Amino acid sequence: MSGGKTWPGNFFEDFRLGQEIVHATPRTLGGGEQALYGALYGGRFALISSDEFARRIGLPRAPIDELLAFHVVFGKTVPDVSLNAVANLGYADCRFLAPVYPGDTLSARSRVIGLKENSSRQTGVVHVRSSGHNQRGEPVVEYVRWVMVRKRDPEAAAPEEAVPDLPDAVAPERIVVPEGIDAGRYDFAAAGQPHRFADYAPGERIDHLDGVTIEEAEHMMATRLYQNTARVHFNQFVEGRGRFGRRLIYGGHVISLARALTFNGLANAFRIAAINAGRHVNPTFAGDTIHAWSQVLDRAPVPGRRDLGLLRLRTVATRDEPCAAFPDADATGKYPASVVLDLDYWALVPA
Amino acid sequence: MSGGKTWPGNFFEDFRLGQEIVHATPRTLGGGEQALYGALYGGRFALISSDEFARRIGLPRAPIDELLAFHVVFGKTVPDVSLNAVANLGYADCRFLAPVYPGDTLSARSRVIGLKENSSRQTGVVHVRSSGHNQRGEPVVEYVRWVMVRKRDPEAAAPEEAVPDLPDAVAPERIVVPEGIDAGRYDFAAAGQPHRFADYAPGERIDHLDGVTIEEAEHMMATRLYQNTARVHFNQFVEGRGRFGRRLIYGGHVISLARALTFNGLANAFRIAAINAGRHVNPTFAGDTIHAWSQVLDRAPVPGRRDLGLLRLRTVATRDEPCAAFPDADATGKYPASVVLDLDYWALVPA
Amino acid sequence: MSGGKTWPGNFFEDFRLGQEIVHATPRTLGGGEQALYGALYGGRFALISSDEFARRIGLPRAPIDELLAFHVVFGKTVPDVSLNAVANLGYADCRFLAPVYPGDTLSARSRVIGLKENSSRQTGVVHVRSSGHNQRGEPVVEYVRWVMVRKRDPEAAAPEEAVPDLPDAVAPERIVVPEGIDAGRYDFAAAGQPHRFADYAPGERIDHLDGVTIEEAEHMMATRLYQNTARVHFNQFVEGRGRFGRRLIYGGHVISLARALTFNGLANAFRIAAINAGRHVNPTFAGDTIHAWSQVLDRAPVPGRRDLGLLRLRTVATRDEPCAAFPDADATGKYPASVVLDLDYWALVPA
Repeated sequence: MSGGKTWPGNFFEDFRLGQEIVHATPRTLGGGEQALYGALYGGRFALISSDEFARRIGLPRAPIDELLAFHVVFGKTVPDVSLNAVANLGYADCRFLAPVYPGDTLSARSRVIGLKENSSRQTGVVHVRSSGHNQRGEPVVEYVRWVMVRKRDPEAAAPEEAVPDLPDAVAPERIVVPEGIDAGRYDFAAAGQPHRFADYAPGERIDHLDGVTIEEAEHMMATRLYQNTARVHFNQFVEGRGRFGRRLIYGGHVISLARALTFNGLANAFRIAAINAGRHVNPTFAGDTIHAWSQVLDRAPVPGRRDLGLLRLRTVATRDEPCAAFPDADATGKYPASVVLDLDYWALVPA
Repeated sequence: MSGGKTWPGNFFEDFRLGQEIVHATPRTLGGGEQALYGALYGGRFALISSDEFARRIGLPRAPIDELLAFHVVFGKTVPDVSLNAVANLGYADCRFLAPVYPGDTLSARSRVIGLKENSSRQTGVVHVRSSGHNQRGEPVVEYVRWVMVRKRDPEAAAPEEAVPDLPDAVAPERIVVPEGIDAGRYDFAAAGQPHRFADYAPGERIDHLDGVTIEEAEHMMATRLYQNTARVHFNQFVEGRGRFGRRLIYGGHVISLARALTFNGLANAFRIAAINAGRHVNPTFAGDTIHAWSQVLDRAPVPGRRDLGLLRLRTVATRDEPCAAFPDADATGKYPASVVLDLDYWALVPA
Repeated sequence: MSGGKTWPGNFFEDFRLGQEIVHATPRTLGGGEQALYGALYGGRFALISSDEFARRIGLPRAPIDELLAFHVVFGKTVPDVSLNAVANLGYADCRFLAPVYPGDTLSARSRVIGLKENSSRQTGVVHVRSSGHNQRGEPVVEYVRWVMVRKRDPEAAAPEEAVPDLPDAVAPERIVVPEGIDAGRYDFAAAGQPHRFADYAPGERIDHLDGVTIEEAEHMMATRLYQNTARVHFNQFVEGRGRFGRRLIYGGHVISLARALTFNGLANAFRIAAINAGRHVNPTFAGDTIHAWSQVLDRAPVPGRRDLGLLRLRTVATRDEPCAAFPDADATGKYPASVVLDLDYWALVPA
């Protein structure tokens, strides 16, 4: 008897279209979080790695990795949105709106923009548009995600059905370049690769070569770094009796591993500006070795500027399969068991 | 032949009643230590998580987690007090006297307040009152602990016997509320739970639901973060031949795991003000999954103020047993093998 | 088809004598990196641990651990120097030239000072002199290392042979004491051990007693902290099919573990000033327990000062063998399988 003080999470029938949720626990991010993030993924993108590099291109110092900010905002939504989720189905229309700097405090809120009961009546799909804000109330990231959430009571009435109309990709004119950046001063030697915006051609594929094996301690530390409380990641006693027999790895951990691997070939994709779509197409577990490959889907200028451009990239991550053969979905859209992530995003690249 | 330069630790017959020990290696704690602590335990208490939350209630910024400060002070006492300990028997009369902020440097000292040889003459019980101080010499935490320590020579004369008279609980009037706090400005939405001081009733029990599995890398990183050098935590080669066949987990690691789990139900117990008693009633090992439940033992006003009160809580942690049934000691005081921690403490809760 | 954008690393025939290489990705080090380094190794050297201790002896605050700085510089050289290395053969003539402080940004460059093809024509030995510089361009560390690097094409012409003449040890007069240090104000009680420079005699051996078991998560986090991308440390899928069947541990991880262990007996060897020679004489794997012993090889005054002196130390680390018997190479120079590191260095010790 908990006196009703523990939080059971929302079930599908608890959500209402248009509902606004203010998520708990603001979080200050500093150099400590950044250092730990670095040690968990090994990223080498120069903007994140070096205050000096950041100053040279016009920022006050190295910003917090945009994916770290994303994961922290995502983590705050978990207790309200996905504590009773069966599956995290996808992301879309994600934009990074302002850099986060050490000392900034992030808070998060969400609006329910889609609800659709499944035919089994056991579950339903919830769409939320979530956003993270700094201590001045400025939005730093916003995105849509949809999750399949259990019903508390299969007989409960379903809310009115609504499925949002989401763009296939964020339109380039909606993308925000961090204020102050002058990529004309980008130091390619320091960044580690000579290739510029114009050197990448749509259709081009890159095998990122390296692979990294996931350990339980790492993904749990990462997920706690994000204050993400989804139970499936932490409790071997319960998960050992569950559908996989193992702790499931937070999908965002795989996104960050894949992003770090892309450095080898995309070192100058120095900042993710938007995520168009993301799907975790197979589960990932400790012991899996992650490899990744990327394809250039598109290129777009940034309206009004010549110092940088936008590459639309698709990064596919695998488990226990190197990517020399670019493992991918087949013609029917079915993914091989080795593919775990399919991520479509826009990155800023110096011109 | 070490030339006598390595430190063998004190044995029971080395201690003297009233002896003052100044422990080595002052330690500066910063945002890095706090970030790592967060990633090891996943705590979400708002005061620790957010500089903005802390400022709103009157502090200059988020303080270092009080248990991190405790573990660092404890760690400094290990080489002098418990390097030759057989068992850490208990804690009592622990008070958190001032917040520690990033940049503060902690040092520790202890006074021997109890000595009692065991009838076997192989070991004795040592009581120490230890305290941690910041760089201005201000005490930040003090506590009594007692440990069973080996004798170097069973034939050595035992010191005069003395067992200190310890309070069952820290009297509320001895508890220190951090200067400047105005809990009337506490933001319950940000903190993640609506329940106030008056919402908790003595006797009430809360199952914290979540569980977390311990990994070797995590508890060793934690214990090194605290510069705690007790050998049983680190050396599988030696421990593999020892009584458990495995590395033993630092008891404080379990306290911190349990504290983080209590967030689910006690989110507004925003600061531990005192620890009345604590016992590690069974050992813990990597692979164990920790769950926790708590009981409200008592409530007390803080003299002279209406913005917050004191909840006396008892948190029990288990290994490999969820806490829906509130596993506990039996009528004779004997604990089931699944219970690993019994911690009695006062926490500050907004009114 | 990577479009040639991934970096295959240099092969032996790609190096030229006198070649200057500017390594990528400058890195800002802060309190977060220092905290994580502490948690990975558990070092207790007071200068690194405490801002107050550092100020007392004349520094502005606790510097970044000199080995952390070394590993970060080393890590930057990996993509250019040793991505195709078969073996890291040794280090020499390493000097720590200036302290690194939180907020400093390190970059690295190397000069090729030796090239010698092996008789098999499959590989060759490359000597580089590498250096790390802070954001003001001041050198903070420099060292020579040599590695055996694969040839892309065994038939490729070998460059002209050159093997540098390296000193057996760094001459004391070339050693740099950090500016501002007054070791006359060294607090031995805070540092944890009373022994001064004069208390150590050449020939003296110290068994450091403690041992620590390595976990996969730890060495991978450490190696990523250093942004060291050598593949053998991270990819179990590939290494499981390789010569050891396991991920190999970065040699620098063992150096840092050994250094932390030496605290017990060498607490006042408060800063490594130079590394004369270092060899990883056997590979190390997760699960290995590292112990260490040290020998005092020599003592030297620091020209012009009486507050401190230089101890030349040799630290030997083992796996799965305690060091009470000082395991060592035999008369022919052959090491037992349990010895993994032989490190010869100068440390600063207060007089």
